Amino acid sequence: MSKNLTSREKDYSKWYNELVVKADLAENSAVRGCMVIKPYGYAIWEKMQAELDRMFKETGHQNAYFPLFVPKSLFEAEEKNAEGFAKECAIVTHYRLENDPDNTGKLRVDPKAKLEEELIVRPTSEAIIWSTYKNWIQSYRDLPILINQWANVVRWEMRTRLFLRTAEFLWQEGHTAHETKSEALIEAEKMNSVYANFAENYMAIPVVKGLKSESERFAGAEQTYCIEALMQDGKALQAGTSHFLGQNFAKAFDVKFTNKEGKLNYVWATSWGVSTRLMGALIMTHSDDKGLVLPPKLAPYQVVIVPIFKTDSEFDKISDLANKITRDLQEKNISVKFDNRTTHRPGAKFAQHELQGVPLRLAIGPKDLENKTVELSRRDDFSKIIIPIDSIEEKIPLVLEDIQQSLFLRANKFRLENTTKVDSFDEFKEVLKNKGGFILAHWDGSAETENKIKQLTKATLRCIPLDNDKSQGKCVFSGKNSDQRVLFAKAY
Amino acid sequence: MSKNLTSREKDYSKWYNELVVKADLAENSAVRGCMVIKPYGYAIWEKMQAELDRMFKETGHQNAYFPLFVPKSLFEAEEKNAEGFAKECAIVTHYRLENDPDNTGKLRVDPKAKLEEELIVRPTSEAIIWSTYKNWIQSYRDLPILINQWANVVRWEMRTRLFLRTAEFLWQEGHTAHETKSEALIEAEKMNSVYANFAENYMAIPVVKGLKSESERFAGAEQTYCIEALMQDGKALQAGTSHFLGQNFAKAFDVKFTNKEGKLNYVWATSWGVSTRLMGALIMTHSDDKGLVLPPKLAPYQVVIVPIFKTDSEFDKISDLANKITRDLQEKNISVKFDNRTTHRPGAKFAQHELQGVPLRLAIGPKDLENKTVELSRRDDFSKIIIPIDSIEEKIPLVLEDIQQSLFLRANKFRLENTTKVDSFDEFKEVLKNKGGFILAHWDGSAETENKIKQLTKATLRCIPLDNDKSQGKCVFSGKNSDQRVLFAKAY
Repeated sequence: MSKNLTSREKDYSKWYNELVVKADLAENSAVRGCMVIKPYGYAIWEKMQAELDRMFKETGHQNAYFPLFVPKSLFEAEEKNAEGFAKECAIVTHYRLENDPDNTGKLRVDPKAKLEEELIVRPTSEAIIWSTYKNWIQSYRDLPILINQWANVVRWEMRTRLFLRTAEFLWQEGHTAHETKSEALIEAEKMNSVYANFAENYMAIPVVKGLKSESERFAGAEQTYCIEALMQDGKALQAGTSHFLGQNFAKAFDVKFTNKEGKLNYVWATSWGVSTRLMGALIMTHSDDKGLVLPPKLAPYQVVIVPIFKTDSEFDKISDLANKITRDLQEKNISVKFDNRTTHRPGAKFAQHELQGVPLRLAIGPKDLENKTVELSRRDDFSKIIIPIDSIEEKIPLVLEDIQQSLFLRANKFRLENTTKVDSFDEFKEVLKNKGGFILAHWDGSAETENKIKQLTKATLRCIPLDNDKSQGKCVFSGKNSDQRVLFAKAY
Repeated sequence: MSKNLTSREKDYSKWYNELVVKADLAENSAVRGCMVIKPYGYAIWEKMQAELDRMFKETGHQNAYFPLFVPKSLFEAEEKNAEGFAKECAIVTHYRLENDPDNTGKLRVDPKAKLEEELIVRPTSEAIIWSTYKNWIQSYRDLPILINQWANVVRWEMRTRLFLRTAEFLWQEGHTAHETKSEALIEAEKMNSVYANFAENYMAIPVVKGLKSESERFAGAEQTYCIEALMQDGKALQAGTSHFLGQNFAKAFDVKFTNKEGKLNYVWATSWGVSTRLMGALIMTHSDDKGLVLPPKLAPYQVVIVPIFKTDSEFDKISDLANKITRDLQEKNISVKFDNRTTHRPGAKFAQHELQGVPLRLAIGPKDLENKTVELSRRDDFSKIIIPIDSIEEKIPLVLEDIQQSLFLRANKFRLENTTKVDSFDEFKEVLKNKGGFILAHWDGSAETENKIKQLTKATLRCIPLDNDKSQGKCVFSGKNSDQRVLFAKAY
């Protein structure tokens, strides 16, 4: 299988598209721009969901569910938000089909069943949620509201790619309401840190935490925090965002509360989200020309056991051992698949598990039974070791932990090597053209300069890093004063 | 709070509607017929999801995700299914809004952005899934496919009620593909049994497993298995269905496979689902005039601790103890909430937890500290006992288990008392009018009789029970021969 995979060097974009399909993660559907997430891909997404959900709950959030549809009059209430999404909305206009009199057996939209008010399929839920919060909030005692929702959203994108940009995608969206500006700001930054923690410690993806410039902010936000990751082709990928929404939605939906002093104030808001786009980041950060590489913490199976046998009796003995190892490892919370299919040869199984990124492969043959050993193969670096059977329980958790860390360190090394400080616009263009990656450059803070750089180079201002050293300098484009380098890159 | 709840006897329907809102489970939204599921209600749904998901995986199913939209041409491919849902479909016709030139700041549908083919918001996913399976299935080696999806679906119902019937609802839908008819039939019956097991052992709701009559079958199914529960007002509620779809969808989407003998055959199918409607069943089976009653296995908090104190020093001492108890119980996988709010008095807290159905309340006051005791109050029967603090860890799991069982037994007793065998149509009408509940009666097997009974009495044939004793008799309506009693009731 993997022999058919285009190499990254030859065509990174083609490699990605092929890998997503061949590794059984997702495929295009009969609906333009919408994907089918296949069981193996969905199992990774479930692992992501479980960890994120735990993190959200540990930071005091609860899940809830709000309607899929937003009536047009609510959708347009917060003007900037509406303007930002109006061009890419799926719109429900009718609620009934009828038999098509001109076409037996076919249906057509019943023109009599036209909705009085059109419904927008949510591209994001601020409008419907803040129209609801209005009824939930009267006093400071009702605050904060800390709610998250797991949902599907629709943005009618013209150019789509599996996981990275699809018309429908799955995500979580947090929507919180606070008494004060500073509390909301703290929440927005905290949730961005939760995302960074998840990216680094579960996805093994190093990220830069930062703030978006004004022109890259979420429509309707006063401040957008983000995490930016670097893919193997030198392009950046925005992996999560957390927005400080000020009082914009409270004002649009007239949501006021009585504070402790008895005065009426508008409520402060945040929203934050990550989506199935994370799957794209995961794939593009670690995988190689042989296929997917998965960090053990998110792999549907962490270990696969492949029996090597000729006779039925060999198969039976190996199966007994494999079943025992499976049970022992499962007791240590390690997920194991015993690939006992008789329809496939070991070579084909090896290729499939390599393509699907199973972190650790354990092969057992008749000689291993004799010697009381098994062969461990790591997916991340293809190294193999032979270990005694009675050390499996002790050894495998350590190897999995080492794979998890190695993937992070490798990605981090790549990022450091591909982050370049530049001090002139010529250098900026040169690095972008010949090396790619993250560029740290001084910027004068104006949207005009940002926009010109984008027009001339296709690089965008990814973020103003939060943990950058402040350093005086001159904008690479305008030569004006700047007190901090910011992050530029071409991006997904 | 609970004092405002209408009693069940006075108006069962009003009681239900009030309870759902007052117990903070759900509320109506700004979108006609769509609900907001509030955090407390959603937490119950999450518990249901977790158990069901585990059961599906244990029976070999994997999760996946298919598009929200179904192109009209796919939707209408299986005619019976299309006909069954055509009258209640939300239809997306456009993909863009534009500024309304006649109305500054407002948006309108952009007439230039009309879709070439309309998209149906999925009312169920057989069509989109079987159009996908067509590409996945070539040979018997590709079978069975055992997939489940957690998703939202939309059915444009005219009369809606929170949880019971909403335009959008959350559900899971299993869609499986098999080599043989018998394998598909076994799957359909197995998943109906999984639902029965879940209803009885987690929701504490006794159910009748049965088959739907032809006129009550799912549109496009050849056989529909179901579980039927009895609510406290004597009405039945269909709590889950599992369909044997025959080869209908395989034929509609031309899905064939090469069998072991090398011959091409159409694939056999099942689908099965339960939805947020289960929340309605849960509420209506157990709750009382004081509010919600929850089985411990599905309660967001199984135990709530309420401190009774006057001074800060008392509060501190009680808090120390409460925190210790919380930790100890959490180690035993019991979920505990320490209600340490200083904004509410104990009485208000008691009322709230009663209204929200927390199975066990633990009150701790200064006297309890002195005596080293706590007071346990059960929500199901309001009984109170005082127990030594050092027996808490041992006692509470037993009490929770007892509550779970007692709720089932109570509901089962109610069901038995309200299941009546009748042998004439006069008796049928009399029981239906004066007693309600399940009616077991002989039926001649014809749709005509079923339909007339429905017209005359509003009772529907709920199911042909699977585990009924076969017994010869005469149809209560037509007097024709019948070899089994079937279940009738008025239903939600």
